[in-house]
Amino acid sequence: MAKIRVLVNGAKGRMGQEVVRAVRAEGDLELVGETDFGDDVERSIRTKGAEVVVDFTQPDVAIENVEKILRAGACPVVGTTGFLPADVERLQDAAAKLERGGLIAPNFALGAVLLMKFAAEAVRYFPDVEVIELHHEQKIDAPSGTAMKTIEAIRRALDGALEEALDDRRASQAEPPASDDRPQEKETVPGSRGGRYLGIPVHSVRLPGYVAHQEVLFGGPGQMLTLRHDSPSRSSFMPGVILAVRKVPRMNQLYYGLEEILDL
Amino acid sequence: MAKIRVLVNGAKGRMGQEVVRAVRAEGDLELVGETDFGDDVERSIRTKGAEVVVDFTQPDVAIENVEKILRAGACPVVGTTGFLPADVERLQDAAAKLERGGLIAPNFALGAVLLMKFAAEAVRYFPDVEVIELHHEQKIDAPSGTAMKTIEAIRRALDGALEEALDDRRASQAEPPASDDRPQEKETVPGSRGGRYLGIPVHSVRLPGYVAHQEVLFGGPGQMLTLRHDSPSRSSFMPGVILAVRKVPRMNQLYYGLEEILDL
Amino acid sequence: MAKIRVLVNGAKGRMGQEVVRAVRAEGDLELVGETDFGDDVERSIRTKGAEVVVDFTQPDVAIENVEKILRAGACPVVGTTGFLPADVERLQDAAAKLERGGLIAPNFALGAVLLMKFAAEAVRYFPDVEVIELHHEQKIDAPSGTAMKTIEAIRRALDGALEEALDDRRASQAEPPASDDRPQEKETVPGSRGGRYLGIPVHSVRLPGYVAHQEVLFGGPGQMLTLRHDSPSRSSFMPGVILAVRKVPRMNQLYYGLEEILDL
Amino acid sequence: MAKIRVLVNGAKGRMGQEVVRAVRAEGDLELVGETDFGDDVERSIRTKGAEVVVDFTQPDVAIENVEKILRAGACPVVGTTGFLPADVERLQDAAAKLERGGLIAPNFALGAVLLMKFAAEAVRYFPDVEVIELHHEQKIDAPSGTAMKTIEAIRRALDGALEEALDDRRASQAEPPASDDRPQEKETVPGSRGGRYLGIPVHSVRLPGYVAHQEVLFGGPGQMLTLRHDSPSRSSFMPGVILAVRKVPRMNQLYYGLEEILDL
Repeated sequence: MAKIRVLVNGAKGRMGQEVVRAVRAEGDLELVGETDFGDDVERSIRTKGAEVVVDFTQPDVAIENVEKILRAGACPVVGTTGFLPADVERLQDAAAKLERGGLIAPNFALGAVLLMKFAAEAVRYFPDVEVIELHHEQKIDAPSGTAMKTIEAIRRALDGALEEALDDRRASQAEPPASDDRPQEKETVPGSRGGRYLGIPVHSVRLPGYVAHQEVLFGGPGQMLTLRHDSPSRSSFMPGVILAVRKVPRMNQLYYGLEEILDL
Repeated sequence: MAKIRVLVNGAKGRMGQEVVRAVRAEGDLELVGETDFGDDVERSIRTKGAEVVVDFTQPDVAIENVEKILRAGACPVVGTTGFLPADVERLQDAAAKLERGGLIAPNFALGAVLLMKFAAEAVRYFPDVEVIELHHEQKIDAPSGTAMKTIEAIRRALDGALEEALDDRRASQAEPPASDDRPQEKETVPGSRGGRYLGIPVHSVRLPGYVAHQEVLFGGPGQMLTLRHDSPSRSSFMPGVILAVRKVPRMNQLYYGLEEILDL
Repeated sequence: MAKIRVLVNGAKGRMGQEVVRAVRAEGDLELVGETDFGDDVERSIRTKGAEVVVDFTQPDVAIENVEKILRAGACPVVGTTGFLPADVERLQDAAAKLERGGLIAPNFALGAVLLMKFAAEAVRYFPDVEVIELHHEQKIDAPSGTAMKTIEAIRRALDGALEEALDDRRASQAEPPASDDRPQEKETVPGSRGGRYLGIPVHSVRLPGYVAHQEVLFGGPGQMLTLRHDSPSRSSFMPGVILAVRKVPRMNQLYYGLEEILDL
Repeated sequence: MAKIRVLVNGAKGRMGQEVVRAVRAEGDLELVGETDFGDDVERSIRTKGAEVVVDFTQPDVAIENVEKILRAGACPVVGTTGFLPADVERLQDAAAKLERGGLIAPNFALGAVLLMKFAAEAVRYFPDVEVIELHHEQKIDAPSGTAMKTIEAIRRALDGALEEALDDRRASQAEPPASDDRPQEKETVPGSRGGRYLGIPVHSVRLPGYVAHQEVLFGGPGQMLTLRHDSPSRSSFMPGVILAVRKVPRMNQLYYGLEEILDL
């Protein structure tokens, strides 16, 4: 089968350069072009016959870029963050009309995305859960964005299980996690029990030497289940980008979030 | 809704007693009877109107028990190990004719079963994987049965991904794990790289103080994904048993393996 | 050499029974007597010729017990908590006059005590440190007593290093941990950065399935050092008790805290 | 107090540049010179009045460099590997005559060195121990050099404790680790129980995404003690180098191994 023809936009940026290297390393992909600020992306796509365009540029131009990519007949794989829900919807409509595949994802770290997915599944069986995230001491905000997204996924799964259970009038099966209602807890040192986001305890560690790490801890009668992701470097995004590049040509709509295309 | 009526067979055994306690603790389940060696299980089921029978007896009587349970109109949840594939098939046929649900599972530790499931999914994205299992120093055989089953699940997933990739003539997408072909590795201390089961490295630790623990380690460019299960006690089986008790009445066939009914 | 002659007081209690079993399992120890509430301990010691008396009784009788043990000519190994500093001092004076060895320790979990010792040493080289302790969901107070003691040991070591450095006018060598002064930190979710005890961040996890676990995390440029202790059962105290039984006959004073006798 | 005057030899190399940066960042150190291949180190030391010289050059010139540094009146801190025992001894003699401090260390990762030290101490109380080391998939030899050195330190401590116990005729106190004699172990998958170096089981994991990690696992009745070191980057050597720079001016002999000067 023919190789997938890939063009990288924003190829001079740090992330763009990583993508260029990553695409070149794959036998089934062909790098047909590299463009950056000032180049006519639409024209390059047509000239080079690009099927997929990977774009890691700035948010202010990314929307327009997606429109251009779709118009020029290619599938966009976009790693820019900062898209508003309304923008995403508009671009999804545009792709749907063309029956064109595409992906916009704020996080391409495949391991982090798998962790979220597994956590959301595990919590249906182990409703007692806490999250620990560990980052370098320069990180100012706590908890991390990834921890909050993980907890949002866990919360949705818990609520889904709860609703299902209520439908069955079997509340005991999926009662809310014990962590939601332990009024008797006593913090000798305030804050030691961590923060609560959507009812789930979250603990943030900040230490030099650490990079970006996350643990989701589940406990049940007589057992512990722990999911951990460590991403010590930028290159952790590449497997997710490559996965998307391979999948978008066979899709017929634009998705938001790497987790959405894992099972396609 | 009415409670699910549960009878425990082998109620005097250590596991049976745990099941009795666990069933009693659930609001949507009703313990309607306890039987053991010498009792007429079939009759007890009919008299008590049991819908589900949990059976943790010996292998030599378990087959007959399943037949009795089905005949008496209840759904079996059986934790006995040592069933032959042919036996399982025969019992599945019997249940299918009756359109009756049931479950035979060698391992009811929900966390261990989830770990296998997640590992099989993760390996599609991270083909480089190793398994470490840690047990008490009294455990004679290495690796553990759970580790071997986990690796079997990983291997099936890897092979499936490989075949898919070959169908697409995109061998690069799912090339065999690097761990399969590293002829250049040099073991200064023989055995330090662990054993290989189905091509996957496996490491067994045996130390006092440990009970039953397993880690599956995935590595990819710039990231590590780790799944860990610790089961320090017998009670780790109960959530899996309770889950099965809730599901079998709504099923119409007999499954083998707790993992098979997770998504039902 | 002759075996060490051991008498267990409080032998009918849960801990006492464990001690009886543990002493019997050691080749160099001889169990010469078991006493409990109502028995004349002093007389039993003399009659049996006990050299060491292990006492895990109630705080209200423990002080008197230590006095009786010393008077009868034996060395006390006492695991009762709740001694006041003044009581300990008085008993230490009594032992010193007799040049008799002895130990009163609130925590006999050797691993936990080693962890404290190592943490106090490591912090001299890695002043950035955080503590995570994980316990079962029934534990009401947070953080755990062991975590607080560990932090107290770390704090003393940090302050000692700081003073040393000030003496040298080399403040940079042992400047206070960065964790002490990060005013810029921003908690999106209050409490997520944990509690602070003596300036050290501490995080408490409470989940079913967990028993008693503690991690001390150190971070420095390009590296992480982690110390972890898991004590899933009561028997974790026995190696510490046995160690003390072996050491007290050769000591000539009474110590408070298992860590004090490790290097004797 | 005056700052310590430091000269960096091999300042153009990758490690040398890191040292230059690290020295500059410390308030109590003054970088007085940078030399490299072709420069007259001896003369630079005298001219600049350097008290300490850090040398990360090649093994073939390192011996001569240490001699020059000592002759010129400064204290050497040398990170070159590959010194023969005879060379080290000769240099130690030279330093001893001058009552000059110095350090030659094959490993400056403070965390790794602390881990060895703690492991050697812990094994006296927990003789059952196994080592797991995890490295990137490009590492060819197994186990790692650091793992072997760690095991050598553990072995020495075990043998010391054993001898002590034999002296006391109390063999039971320090009997060889159970791991030494478990003839009944059965490896279904050969190699799964790992390699044995000096009688201690060692397991090597090789996966992409990993850098350099080591765990020492101790088990005793009812408890587990785990020591872990992760060193994801080259900068992990700097705290050890800076520590040595501060200590050598106050020493009066040349030591081999960072662990030797920790308690000075």
